[in-house]
Amino acid sequence: MKKVTVFAPATIANLGCGFDVMGMALDEVGDILEMSAEEGDGISIVNSCEVPLPNDIEKNVITPVIRSFLAKLGRNAHINVDVKKKIFPGSGIGSSAASSAAAAYGMNELFERPFSVEELVEFAMEGERLACGSAHADNAAPAVMGGAILVRGYNPLDIIQLPVPDNFYCSVVHPHIVVTTKESRSVLPNQIPLSTAITQWGNLGGLVAGFYKSDVKLIGRAMKEVVAEPHRKQFIPGFDALKEKLLAEGALCMNISGSGPSVFALSEDKKAAEKIGEIMKLHLKEQGIDSNIYVMKVSDKGAKTI
Amino acid sequence: MKKVTVFAPATIANLGCGFDVMGMALDEVGDILEMSAEEGDGISIVNSCEVPLPNDIEKNVITPVIRSFLAKLGRNAHINVDVKKKIFPGSGIGSSAASSAAAAYGMNELFERPFSVEELVEFAMEGERLACGSAHADNAAPAVMGGAILVRGYNPLDIIQLPVPDNFYCSVVHPHIVVTTKESRSVLPNQIPLSTAITQWGNLGGLVAGFYKSDVKLIGRAMKEVVAEPHRKQFIPGFDALKEKLLAEGALCMNISGSGPSVFALSEDKKAAEKIGEIMKLHLKEQGIDSNIYVMKVSDKGAKTI
Repeated sequence: MKKVTVFAPATIANLGCGFDVMGMALDEVGDILEMSAEEGDGISIVNSCEVPLPNDIEKNVITPVIRSFLAKLGRNAHINVDVKKKIFPGSGIGSSAASSAAAAYGMNELFERPFSVEELVEFAMEGERLACGSAHADNAAPAVMGGAILVRGYNPLDIIQLPVPDNFYCSVVHPHIVVTTKESRSVLPNQIPLSTAITQWGNLGGLVAGFYKSDVKLIGRAMKEVVAEPHRKQFIPGFDALKEKLLAEGALCMNISGSGPSVFALSEDKKAAEKIGEIMKLHLKEQGIDSNIYVMKVSDKGAKTI
Repeated sequence: MKKVTVFAPATIANLGCGFDVMGMALDEVGDILEMSAEEGDGISIVNSCEVPLPNDIEKNVITPVIRSFLAKLGRNAHINVDVKKKIFPGSGIGSSAASSAAAAYGMNELFERPFSVEELVEFAMEGERLACGSAHADNAAPAVMGGAILVRGYNPLDIIQLPVPDNFYCSVVHPHIVVTTKESRSVLPNQIPLSTAITQWGNLGGLVAGFYKSDVKLIGRAMKEVVAEPHRKQFIPGFDALKEKLLAEGALCMNISGSGPSVFALSEDKKAAEKIGEIMKLHLKEQGIDSNIYVMKVSDKGAKTI
């Protein structure tokens, strides 16, 4: 019976102006899966972590990832998964994507790597489909591949991995409030002014260029969001005041992580990022809201065996 | 009396999904200005070319470029300009921008280079303001700087120069029909669907990445336009049929140049680009429309002394 232990990292989706098309991988925190394959048919999932998981495997994002993998491979197997999840659902750093990416990567290792990294992203997206209702790639692709990822388009899936600067740190605050993805999407307009769209894609171009040039100042001034943020920031108490504080303290930028309510800021070094994290926590405490803070390096590493 | 002879190249604006934010420089064809400065105050412009120019210097794009340069420098001078213009107005390859860029570059040479290349773009934009009613940079910046240019934003002006692939050729057809910029802008919607905007900025990100990766296939599949083209193609007889023909012949992409009615296609080598040019001309002839064809290399060179 072949066994493998795999890790996939936390990720941030959207990256400001990269709404629905960009994401990036973070270091250290992630989900770990111990996986094995044996003869038979079926999936067994054991939870060895503090993070609560659904008992029904049909509700676990790992299940559709494994099934889509085996279906494309044309093989039967019984897959055992022991989950050591470190990312809490709703924390805004790609909880479902990390488990999905780890499952896709682990399956490929168990079966002698039949699929390309892009194909693994497609399997991981099946986990996102279960979690969010749509098979988006903006968390799943960086969780599999690492780095900053641009999803140019979906028909066919066209994923571009961008290099990330060294010494580039992300502070994420997860406020203990609940905003569902559905709620967060419901406030978005169906139509936007052409002039606003042009501002957004000018910034998106600058953001992609910033990653290639390893120019963190350019990344910071380009990573602005003029389309979704004006509608979504209402869910995050004191959003504008927090942004003002963080920029004054030297953060390169501050944006909503994915569909929120978590918020992230980027910094040029770890010490600055830790200070930004403290300010985030204090700011929310002043609003009467508890929070978790994560300070992590932006990473070019994705899923891997450990 | 100091004299200088300067050249600035033809340019293509918009580059498909880079609507209002991108442009690139072409090789060979461009405008040449012989400029000199003497004591006094005023501007004399002589036309030594076949291209008709307005007799009134207030209507020549060169005038506001020279005036804004001298105003910022805080100097008086009488500037003489002898114009050898090679780009016909309305040809869709940045006629006003080439003259404006050459004037800005020439002034900087005459006065011992007091200004940065970005500042020269700002002077050249004053020519665009006279020609088009708005001081846009998507032709002016590549005409000054060369290469592919992203205008991330205007407040303040933030210009990013992208590298261009070697052996990358552009075929431009200038159909002998008149579509004013005003007319071409009037058909654009004020609001666009959010989903369409996301498609466009996914492509724009891919286009910027394609230039950095020197990946002409990626440039080709990303250089699509889903916002303006559906409204503007009505001005170009047989637009869809022409695109189908060119893509079938191996063109990487086909788009409207600037606000039209010229159309350009990109190819991986000169021979292919020449063939694409012939097909363009034949296609328009079949519609009863005469045209000029330009086949030029995409260039990393902007304005220069010659």
